[in-house]
Amino acid sequence: MLRRTILSLAMLAWPLLASAQMNEIGANPDRMEQRIKALSAYGTDDSGATSRVAFSEADLAGRKYIMGLMREAGLAVRIDTAGNIIGRREGTDESLPPIMFGSHIDSVPGGGNYDGDVGVIGAIEVAQLLHERGIKTNHPLEIVSFTDEEGGLTGSRAMIGQLTDSALEVMTHSGLTIGEGIFAVGGDPSRLELAERQPGSIAAFVELHIEQGGILDEENINIGIVEGIVGIRWWDVTIDGFANHAGTTPMNKRRDAMVTAAELTLAINRIATELSGRQVATVGKIRALPGAPNVIPGEVVLSLEIRDLDARKIQQVFDLIEVEAQHIGEARFTPIRFAELDVASPPAPTDQQMRRIISTAADDLGLSFRWMPSGAGHDAQDMTHIAPTGMIFVPSAKGISHSPEEFTSAVDMANGASVLLKTVLAIDNGALE
Amino acid sequence: MLRRTILSLAMLAWPLLASAQMNEIGANPDRMEQRIKALSAYGTDDSGATSRVAFSEADLAGRKYIMGLMREAGLAVRIDTAGNIIGRREGTDESLPPIMFGSHIDSVPGGGNYDGDVGVIGAIEVAQLLHERGIKTNHPLEIVSFTDEEGGLTGSRAMIGQLTDSALEVMTHSGLTIGEGIFAVGGDPSRLELAERQPGSIAAFVELHIEQGGILDEENINIGIVEGIVGIRWWDVTIDGFANHAGTTPMNKRRDAMVTAAELTLAINRIATELSGRQVATVGKIRALPGAPNVIPGEVVLSLEIRDLDARKIQQVFDLIEVEAQHIGEARFTPIRFAELDVASPPAPTDQQMRRIISTAADDLGLSFRWMPSGAGHDAQDMTHIAPTGMIFVPSAKGISHSPEEFTSAVDMANGASVLLKTVLAIDNGALE
Repeated sequence: MLRRTILSLAMLAWPLLASAQMNEIGANPDRMEQRIKALSAYGTDDSGATSRVAFSEADLAGRKYIMGLMREAGLAVRIDTAGNIIGRREGTDESLPPIMFGSHIDSVPGGGNYDGDVGVIGAIEVAQLLHERGIKTNHPLEIVSFTDEEGGLTGSRAMIGQLTDSALEVMTHSGLTIGEGIFAVGGDPSRLELAERQPGSIAAFVELHIEQGGILDEENINIGIVEGIVGIRWWDVTIDGFANHAGTTPMNKRRDAMVTAAELTLAINRIATELSGRQVATVGKIRALPGAPNVIPGEVVLSLEIRDLDARKIQQVFDLIEVEAQHIGEARFTPIRFAELDVASPPAPTDQQMRRIISTAADDLGLSFRWMPSGAGHDAQDMTHIAPTGMIFVPSAKGISHSPEEFTSAVDMANGASVLLKTVLAIDNGALE
Repeated sequence: MLRRTILSLAMLAWPLLASAQMNEIGANPDRMEQRIKALSAYGTDDSGATSRVAFSEADLAGRKYIMGLMREAGLAVRIDTAGNIIGRREGTDESLPPIMFGSHIDSVPGGGNYDGDVGVIGAIEVAQLLHERGIKTNHPLEIVSFTDEEGGLTGSRAMIGQLTDSALEVMTHSGLTIGEGIFAVGGDPSRLELAERQPGSIAAFVELHIEQGGILDEENINIGIVEGIVGIRWWDVTIDGFANHAGTTPMNKRRDAMVTAAELTLAINRIATELSGRQVATVGKIRALPGAPNVIPGEVVLSLEIRDLDARKIQQVFDLIEVEAQHIGEARFTPIRFAELDVASPPAPTDQQMRRIISTAADDLGLSFRWMPSGAGHDAQDMTHIAPTGMIFVPSAKGISHSPEEFTSAVDMANGASVLLKTVLAIDNGALE
């Protein structure tokens, strides 16, 4: 009871302190940009593309660099059994759960230098600012760089106890399985339960990230308040035609799986475009068999992905596609089959209070902001299962992502880190309660 | 002059002899089917598919089997410098050029047991029937099994002096280049000129082949008289879109190369189908880049093939496609480029007299027949450059070809060989003069 009283007093004192501090401290754009550039060196090839895929030599070197920055910011660094890097800063109240924030530094093959990286460098910036100013928080702070985000949110999945044994067997771009990779970066895949966090054991989770879309850039808005991470469902779609000689089979005798695939692809695009709402549907991958210029394709397999913030909307889009596919397949005597892949992620709405805290922080800093879904998956979606979670977006130039042309300006990165700092202090100050 | 007189006398005598013989001799369906089955053993896997690709171990074994059959039929066997197997039977008149007939025994990967094989086994059947009956012809006869037909008409191209040095460098399915392959089967790629035959040095060339289409089977007709081999042109078609994140890029902000490829594929199919005539156009191969389910394709490359017996018709179809592509590309902000590949083969009409001789042979044997183009390429198309050339088609069950399900009945094979025999004897008898 005594401790609770002291805590409450401390909480009352903080808003004044934080406001006073915030008038003077903000993230340092030059330092952030310089660190992004330094981190980029690990995995960037001559063409400018970054392939810092999880568990690669470049990833190991990047992780080492990040741990150095964390130590420089006064953080106590450890690697949990899932390979997540955690830099901890103690609070004044040992009884309080930590506020966690961060992102990831692994990339897709041939990617850019901002996806994930901005969130980790931004989180370290926040820690460093507090360290330099000697500002103490009530809650402990944990800055996290998650393991292998691009390969399936591996680190955050382990943190919420959902990284399966079969996931450990999955081969990654590094040439190691996820299990081998976790071991290689200093984790212990045989004791993943030690990396697990229980619901309520983390006060809040915040992730700063680039938008990876063009909305903020196009509308010239500083900050995106993420309403949630869209749900994703994947299907393998198989079209059964009849392979035959392209020279000897008249046009009207063909059961050409490629022509059916073309009609279906146009239908998918039309359905997703014409429905009102923000749903997206994509055919990103296609394979024709046997795949020779002089053979009518007997089979085509293509990928279908549908995303939306509302699971019912995803189902509605799929139902419409399935009905249309039935008609197309029958008309062309080329049946179409849908096999859903076991990689679905349900929509993950962020915490309403967190959204409000982030928008207040942006507003106080004089930054423009808007609500928006995240069309991309993030570690934050896992963290919604165990903690009040919020996400802060900063603009991606021209909306380009997963590409060497990915870019976010130093000022935009610093704006994001400043909003992150203010958000963390507000939470520490009891804004969630 | 004396010799010419003797020859003329012989020619006058032959029709009587030939007619008399033909009332008694015809191809042996059981023997042909048994030999097709024996040949099939070389290269057929557990699934029933035959991969006797040129220059493979299976091809070498099949060639050895064929040379054995040739010797059994009394032929003098040699391998020319292009690797073509030639079984020769001398005629009574040394001054006459040979009548050549045959086909090939190499297959596509995962193919069947009739494409090419029927023509070689049928040609040997003709030689064996003459051998067994002790029938002498005026002209020498050359039974040929051409090298690597499926890899680009290699053997017949060499025979007409058009196998280029760069073709010798082309890698084949066997793991050898064409040059290495020719050497491996007993040829000498450094002395291809020795395999070359001059125009006029061959009295006539006849190829018996399965139709590889479904017209004869569907119309229940015994024999196809080939009017010519269609011309073929190939293009690589590249669609430039913009690769972007499939989750964060709204439907109306996409430059999706896959959607454009779909619209183009439908247009190609529609144009080739709606024009009157027998032209065909096919998209058999497609590749989307980067090719991930969660990335909007930034580039799609697909194959376009157009065939017709008339080169002007091929150009007309292409022109219509190109105009339509221009519209589609502009409307979707995804330019479409066509790059023609250097593999075009012009239409190759067969010799009009040869068509007449073959139809007379079929008619005399009481077999039904029809005129038709060959939609597939054949060694015969090369031979049209140096000799009066004819082609005899027999039915392919359900029109299936380049597939393990390829099938031609023993009776249909024997009908084809009987027409071939009668055609060869008619030519020997001066029907061409």
